[in-house]
Amino acid sequence: MINSLLNKFELDTPCLVLDLDILESNLHKMQVAATRAGKQLRPHAKTHKCSILAKTQMAAGAVGICVAKVSEAEALVNRDLQNILITGPVATERKIARMVDLLSRAPNLMVAIDRPESVTTLADLLHARWMSMDVLLDLDVGLHRTGVTPSAAMDLARLILTRPELRLKGIQAYAGQVQHIPSYEERKKASLACLQEAAGVFRQLQAITDTCSIFSASGTGTFDIDLEIPELTDMQVGSYVCMDTEYLSIGSAADPKQFSAFTPALRLLTSVISCNQPGFVTVDAGLKSLYRDGGLPRLFGEQAAGLAYSWFGDEYGRITSINGGELPALGSVLELVTSHCDPTINLFDRFYLVRDDQVVGIWPIDLRGCSQ
Amino acid sequence: MINSLLNKFELDTPCLVLDLDILESNLHKMQVAATRAGKQLRPHAKTHKCSILAKTQMAAGAVGICVAKVSEAEALVNRDLQNILITGPVATERKIARMVDLLSRAPNLMVAIDRPESVTTLADLLHARWMSMDVLLDLDVGLHRTGVTPSAAMDLARLILTRPELRLKGIQAYAGQVQHIPSYEERKKASLACLQEAAGVFRQLQAITDTCSIFSASGTGTFDIDLEIPELTDMQVGSYVCMDTEYLSIGSAADPKQFSAFTPALRLLTSVISCNQPGFVTVDAGLKSLYRDGGLPRLFGEQAAGLAYSWFGDEYGRITSINGGELPALGSVLELVTSHCDPTINLFDRFYLVRDDQVVGIWPIDLRGCSQ
Repeated sequence: MINSLLNKFELDTPCLVLDLDILESNLHKMQVAATRAGKQLRPHAKTHKCSILAKTQMAAGAVGICVAKVSEAEALVNRDLQNILITGPVATERKIARMVDLLSRAPNLMVAIDRPESVTTLADLLHARWMSMDVLLDLDVGLHRTGVTPSAAMDLARLILTRPELRLKGIQAYAGQVQHIPSYEERKKASLACLQEAAGVFRQLQAITDTCSIFSASGTGTFDIDLEIPELTDMQVGSYVCMDTEYLSIGSAADPKQFSAFTPALRLLTSVISCNQPGFVTVDAGLKSLYRDGGLPRLFGEQAAGLAYSWFGDEYGRITSINGGELPALGSVLELVTSHCDPTINLFDRFYLVRDDQVVGIWPIDLRGCSQ
Repeated sequence: MINSLLNKFELDTPCLVLDLDILESNLHKMQVAATRAGKQLRPHAKTHKCSILAKTQMAAGAVGICVAKVSEAEALVNRDLQNILITGPVATERKIARMVDLLSRAPNLMVAIDRPESVTTLADLLHARWMSMDVLLDLDVGLHRTGVTPSAAMDLARLILTRPELRLKGIQAYAGQVQHIPSYEERKKASLACLQEAAGVFRQLQAITDTCSIFSASGTGTFDIDLEIPELTDMQVGSYVCMDTEYLSIGSAADPKQFSAFTPALRLLTSVISCNQPGFVTVDAGLKSLYRDGGLPRLFGEQAAGLAYSWFGDEYGRITSINGGELPALGSVLELVTSHCDPTINLFDRFYLVRDDQVVGIWPIDLRGCSQ
């Protein structure tokens, strides 16, 4: 039981808090943007790792939930989520078998696929079990991490179409390499080029089969840009829910210096636990509670202007005075916006939910550690 | 139940494996080094986050176990471990109360202390509960992260001695800043300077009280160096158990190019899940399963010479061919030595135990996520 009178600054630290008013505003803004443009939301749970938050996204209007890994899909199905898209290739025999086991409990599970060998292994296993599965062709539009190149896409599509166990529902085209381009105009140009190429493949696919109705792409950094692509149907955005300094630092349509469409709902609380040095104090959040990636976390609130966080080992951080900012006293609790929200959330087991700084509940981060 | 005939390369990935033969050899070498020099081992569980491994260290001869956080101590006490030293300052009222609650179940719990306010808050709470506690004076020997400076140490010690609720058992002097100095000779010089200064404080303390019998210090990078300090009693070493590329890359007494005293017992297994590009393939271990810190992970075994790992986002890694190395096929499982073992272990829930590559058991990483 959570005492409804507990203020967030009374929580033990380090811990993660989610501001529900901001979270709901972020969910609403993205859903409205998609709906107005005639697109569907298929938000990515790899960011928040939380089945209740995924259900909240569905209740707000999403048509499905993306995950990166089979174990994340298992966790969501265990919590009665459906309409799950696995965005990463599932390529080993062991993992394909694990996914097909899950398919028997989640018949509308869908997976992105990028290799002929995977098509054959998956279809053969489905055949042996008298099952079938929806797939998206994973298209590489420049990240080069997964996906088939556009020039090889039609060959892979034709192979998929030879297998009655697989229903080719469309394409996935994630342009991860453009999401954090600082200049909005450069990002816009790069993203549109990627998705226009993907749209060409999508139209070719639609010309050879009538099952292709999904063109899933986009990310938080290009959400408003990609809405311009007529063929795009689904937005697989992730970070907009929580936000982090990596995204807040890029330019936007409204402001070349910052990304203003969404507000940081996620904060990390940390306490000052040592103060024996001039110019800085030590806090209780380090590498193991604030993932070192994506730049520096930022102080939030009144203290933000005069203090800066830097990592100080596995368990500790350093809060340095800048521009004459007054150092916080021993025992003070500070609030940080994380640098890269996804891997930081994956370090914790729960979000503390707050409204007006009062703790109103807990959501388990029940996909935490699901890396398989 | 683990099938005793399962080979580690049949495990689903990403996952962590611990080679028990190497682990036991590492434990034995460190224990013998300490015992021969008349020192005690007090190994750090913040590295491995595993109560069974802590018990294994105790069974091998350790006198106690170090932890960084109160929540780690709670997890060990819940598994019937005793003789626990909390090496980080416990400074907020909430955390001090939590520690004193634990003390009622673990009367020989000990904590490092570095501030007069903490002395007063802790002693007052102990007084109110008719309890007492062992403490070490946390001495800052140059890391400047926590600890009292040597010049202020005696004042803090005298304050502790005024409080009958606290028993001043000695000092802790962790020179974290010298552990990874690449040159063995420079590291030796720096570490001895730190610990000689600490030894001076230790002798001063012993002159004013007869309860000071513990001088706890050292780390994996300086274990053989610090044995030369006559006053040193306890070695609070951590990474030697598992090892990582960050430690393997520093020089040692035997070899200026590598640290050869301990062998990597910990490996991460990862599978090739996409291979549509020339020159590299994509594997299923990224930021969320291989912490991005401490340099680059290294391929282990036969493929090590011709392949290199680099991070490729939250869920993926890139395996690049170097020196003409042949790229592994789709579905291949690769073995990596992690770059920084501590935060990587903290991303997983279990170690798979292997002997001669056969899986022989599982140890839960039951202190995982204990960052409070």
